Amino acid sequence: MSDSDRAIPDFAAIEQAVRRLEGLAHRTPILTSAYFDQRTGAELFFKCENFQKVGAFKFRGACNAIAALTDQQGRRGVVTHSSGNHGQAVALAARLKGYPATVVMPDNAARVKIEAVRDYGAEIVFCEPNTPARAAAVERVLAERGGVFIPPYDHSDVIAGQGTAARELLEDCPGLDVVIAPVGGGGLISGTAIAVKHLKPDCRVIAAEPANADDAARSFRSGKIEPVASTTTIADGLRTSLGELTFAVIRDHVDDVVTVSETAIIDAMRQVWERMKIVIEPSCAVPLAALLEGKIEVTGQRVGIIVTGGNVDLDAMGTLLARI
Amino acid sequence: MSDSDRAIPDFAAIEQAVRRLEGLAHRTPILTSAYFDQRTGAELFFKCENFQKVGAFKFRGACNAIAALTDQQGRRGVVTHSSGNHGQAVALAARLKGYPATVVMPDNAARVKIEAVRDYGAEIVFCEPNTPARAAAVERVLAERGGVFIPPYDHSDVIAGQGTAARELLEDCPGLDVVIAPVGGGGLISGTAIAVKHLKPDCRVIAAEPANADDAARSFRSGKIEPVASTTTIADGLRTSLGELTFAVIRDHVDDVVTVSETAIIDAMRQVWERMKIVIEPSCAVPLAALLEGKIEVTGQRVGIIVTGGNVDLDAMGTLLARI
Repeated sequence: MSDSDRAIPDFAAIEQAVRRLEGLAHRTPILTSAYFDQRTGAELFFKCENFQKVGAFKFRGACNAIAALTDQQGRRGVVTHSSGNHGQAVALAARLKGYPATVVMPDNAARVKIEAVRDYGAEIVFCEPNTPARAAAVERVLAERGGVFIPPYDHSDVIAGQGTAARELLEDCPGLDVVIAPVGGGGLISGTAIAVKHLKPDCRVIAAEPANADDAARSFRSGKIEPVASTTTIADGLRTSLGELTFAVIRDHVDDVVTVSETAIIDAMRQVWERMKIVIEPSCAVPLAALLEGKIEVTGQRVGIIVTGGNVDLDAMGTLLARI
Repeated sequence: MSDSDRAIPDFAAIEQAVRRLEGLAHRTPILTSAYFDQRTGAELFFKCENFQKVGAFKFRGACNAIAALTDQQGRRGVVTHSSGNHGQAVALAARLKGYPATVVMPDNAARVKIEAVRDYGAEIVFCEPNTPARAAAVERVLAERGGVFIPPYDHSDVIAGQGTAARELLEDCPGLDVVIAPVGGGGLISGTAIAVKHLKPDCRVIAAEPANADDAARSFRSGKIEPVASTTTIADGLRTSLGELTFAVIRDHVDDVVTVSETAIIDAMRQVWERMKIVIEPSCAVPLAALLEGKIEVTGQRVGIIVTGGNVDLDAMGTLLARI
């Protein structure tokens, strides 16, 4: 990556991302819910990135990073590793720009995710399901084929791309008092914080994460990156540790990091399906779970929530629901 | 019911319903799906009544019928029977107008449906789960307490209310070539046909129903009402037979009635959850199932689909999914 990829993006970078994503990403709708307003005593605005292309906000960051390449760079191909939404996002964004893509995936990845990446036209390279094997596979692909690595979160253009969701949210709902987003690697919450604090400095920005993967909360309190311990949290999109860029943004621009129990996550997810009639994935339910558990004071306030994605394995649904 | 309740409503009645529903019902969004467009070779517009109040289009009809009452009539209370969405619709519509409501429900109704009706403030009278017991319970309630009976579909104001969904759909998508809705008792498809044939006479109107509850298809072909046989179709909202009014509208204004298999219904429902990230109930998947099974010729056409509701019992989900 170049030096500029390692810089913390400013609001101008988010504005540039907005222009790059035009015609490529959806402007997602904002839903409301009388039921959850009544439950929380607040006015909630759900920014529905589950309706985004590939079913998750991840498309914004990957697409911005890929659209930022010169055509010469892009034609040499893009490479990433992912067992989840970022792989699909890179695959589709590359296809829309006409660039080849290679996605390194663990050989135990869910069949449905492998098929999705393949359907978007990317080549898949399998590796053993551990971090050293994954890094080695990416290195090998880059050495053999060249191309540009598009990391999942710790990258200037990825963060700026994710920030476009909050920018749209504040454009549609300018009077928000607080914006909440989940935190895993931190790309989304970083972009969100940069956008919100520029557009409405007195609006609080809160990160929410599973108590079973509380690296962001610990890092926020201690002031240094504390990696996540091995975790089986149901919120599989939030099992990663913060990066250097995302940690710096969270430390400087996020007001608080709160944690929620596994039961609260599944309960919130289920209630969203039942009451709002939208499909969200477990990671996506974490901010609402924090509200329903009373972890964030919002009485009488206007609250924006980034609804991050809707990619669930329906075959595993029965098991999920049986846990509560 | 009065004579006017037994008249076939015209488009003016639907326009009147629009005015009555203002501020009471949601104007629901219309979603599109690149995936299903590609699968069907058509351009699909999904009118999302699963986002309607009580999670189903049924609110429109019940609310129109209740809003049509004089205050004196309404204060004496409204009465209905339902094991599903119509009961919730009557309960909420009555509450919004400040009228008491009584809902006769079978004593084996799902707990979640009983609670929903109760949460909307209606009184519940239980009866044995068969038609004579249900009719007797309604008669008893009306004799003891008075009040107005709001039937689930064979009623002028109910049909007119259901027609407001298609009117909104055509207002937002004026160029439709065909509109498809499921048919159970026929209230929705009747209102839809009246609205569509008035606004765009060359737009086809197609009813879709489960092959396992094909009374509308048989009645349409034979020219007389043929009641549904006992059925266990997964599309539990479509197990009822046509009424006199709804049959007359279908006979005169609907272009065709198509039927689909149980497997196609479950498969379509699952694909909507996975691809569109919205929760729909089995009855609601029937029109899309007809398209995916090639039962309606739509190549290159603009197709409106009424997405009727999203009230599923998530506890039964695993069983549903296991059937495919």
